Amino acid sequence: MTAVTPAARSRVRVAVIGCGAIGSLYAAHLARVPEVEVWVVDPWAEHMAAIAADGLRVTGLADFTAQVRPLTDGRDLPDCDFGLVATKATHTRAAVEGARSALLSAAVVSLQNGLGNEEAIAELLPRVIRGSIITAGAVAAPGVVRYDAPGDSWFGPFEPRPAALDEVERLARLLTAGGLRTHAMPDARGPQWTKVVFNSATSPLAALTGLSVGRVCTDAGLRPQVDALIAEALAVCDKAGIVLTRPPGEAVAEAIAEAYDHKPSMLQDVLARRATEIDTLNGGIAAEGRRTGVPTPHHDCMVALVKGVESGWAP
Amino acid sequence: MTAVTPAARSRVRVAVIGCGAIGSLYAAHLARVPEVEVWVVDPWAEHMAAIAADGLRVTGLADFTAQVRPLTDGRDLPDCDFGLVATKATHTRAAVEGARSALLSAAVVSLQNGLGNEEAIAELLPRVIRGSIITAGAVAAPGVVRYDAPGDSWFGPFEPRPAALDEVERLARLLTAGGLRTHAMPDARGPQWTKVVFNSATSPLAALTGLSVGRVCTDAGLRPQVDALIAEALAVCDKAGIVLTRPPGEAVAEAIAEAYDHKPSMLQDVLARRATEIDTLNGGIAAEGRRTGVPTPHHDCMVALVKGVESGWAP
Repeated sequence: MTAVTPAARSRVRVAVIGCGAIGSLYAAHLARVPEVEVWVVDPWAEHMAAIAADGLRVTGLADFTAQVRPLTDGRDLPDCDFGLVATKATHTRAAVEGARSALLSAAVVSLQNGLGNEEAIAELLPRVIRGSIITAGAVAAPGVVRYDAPGDSWFGPFEPRPAALDEVERLARLLTAGGLRTHAMPDARGPQWTKVVFNSATSPLAALTGLSVGRVCTDAGLRPQVDALIAEALAVCDKAGIVLTRPPGEAVAEAIAEAYDHKPSMLQDVLARRATEIDTLNGGIAAEGRRTGVPTPHHDCMVALVKGVESGWAP
Repeated sequence: MTAVTPAARSRVRVAVIGCGAIGSLYAAHLARVPEVEVWVVDPWAEHMAAIAADGLRVTGLADFTAQVRPLTDGRDLPDCDFGLVATKATHTRAAVEGARSALLSAAVVSLQNGLGNEEAIAELLPRVIRGSIITAGAVAAPGVVRYDAPGDSWFGPFEPRPAALDEVERLARLLTAGGLRTHAMPDARGPQWTKVVFNSATSPLAALTGLSVGRVCTDAGLRPQVDALIAEALAVCDKAGIVLTRPPGEAVAEAIAEAYDHKPSMLQDVLARRATEIDTLNGGIAAEGRRTGVPTPHHDCMVALVKGVESGWAP
């Protein structure tokens, strides 16, 4: 598509891989920073065409239109300084593979849910950043993303194949300058696991029973299961040296008080017969448990049951 | 209804409480024995009226019509020598309470699925028999029961409030004479738990995932859950001194080979949004685990999840 001019190359070039709600929000905010040139890659041709014609519009909590360079195929990307991966976890490998040659010298962060995404990226690329975000939104129409919930992001070098901490700090500064406050830290596992532990202790129980997060957390029979899942995850954290940013019990209390009727995305996925993110939640905790020698029978059970549910949809 | 004549009282009087498929089959077979007078109690008025008019007809594996005395209310029963309880587990208390005064001097056996039924009967009556059956059938129409699967029955005194072993033997002889081979034994927990261990290791996994028993037992993720449920149950048996009549692994292999596509009744109940028998399966194993000090976290998890599913149906 667009030829890259020498002038453009003098800027920091960022590729956003996967341009759904999160990819669109991060791309648009980054593109507000003059020194950044943003490319977005997504096979959704209508969304890319609308962005090419009218720019990428943000509504909701913000209101602006950003100029980004859309592509439907990552093989058309020029060499980049940074990559932001924002696909569904199940599409990571194919999407990163497509953009691989442009990202070989980039520092690449995962903005995806749960655990294991950085591992998947690191199988293909050398310098990876662990990311954890709580921003939320939705693509309202091709070319338009609605910004629903703000929130900080936390980035840190992915331990087995790390980007340098100064690269992490540079990307965090650019995102913060664009309006999405991002913290660079040497170990970003704490914020990431804080979110994962709560979700993995509640989402599969909701998905398997059809109950809301508030009912799961207050049901006399299910609450001990929530607590058992949390206890196993905390044992894994303890062994792996992961320090949560707040106790999971606080998140449980908050969910009961503020989101009682919320149906977690895993329940929504089951109701719609879509593949769930169980592998990146309970599966990720179980994998870290195996790595560190901590048994996780409750998480194993959730993985087996939810994957069993999914296998029933196969033709 | 019918007045009891002195001649009738000279026979052994048996009340069958709950006249669905199993109650009908046992009542009809017992009534073929000349020395036995059989009463059946069930609130299903059409079935009772058809039996009063035309007798109780057995089709399928047998073909005969038995004369039994139908009642819709247990309070109309005369004093009995034996009681056979064949209601759904959830109706035991109400049904036995209704027939209680006629059964106070009777030896009363449970023909129901799973664990805990004898305990419920023993809360109301003094002399209880533990029963385990594998006979199967279905009520085909009011007054007609289809006999689908034969099989031995095993009776033994219920330990905390036992009937005498000679009463157990007498009832077993009468049933065997009527055509349903029944074994009296001092400890009938072995046959009962043999059935319960297999069902509790497979039924809830099928109910929660929607998969058939064969798929549950061959799925790479779920099979370890089957095995974990079996292992916990065997630890409870070991502590409680219960000797299974065959290893659960044999039943698993048999289910894969001979009943791969079978949907366990618990899955059928979930699909039809009926209360399941989880309390008498996994709940019964967990209760015996608590009594004997053996932890049963996998069974506890199944109970919590299936009861969670049930609670989602409440208005």
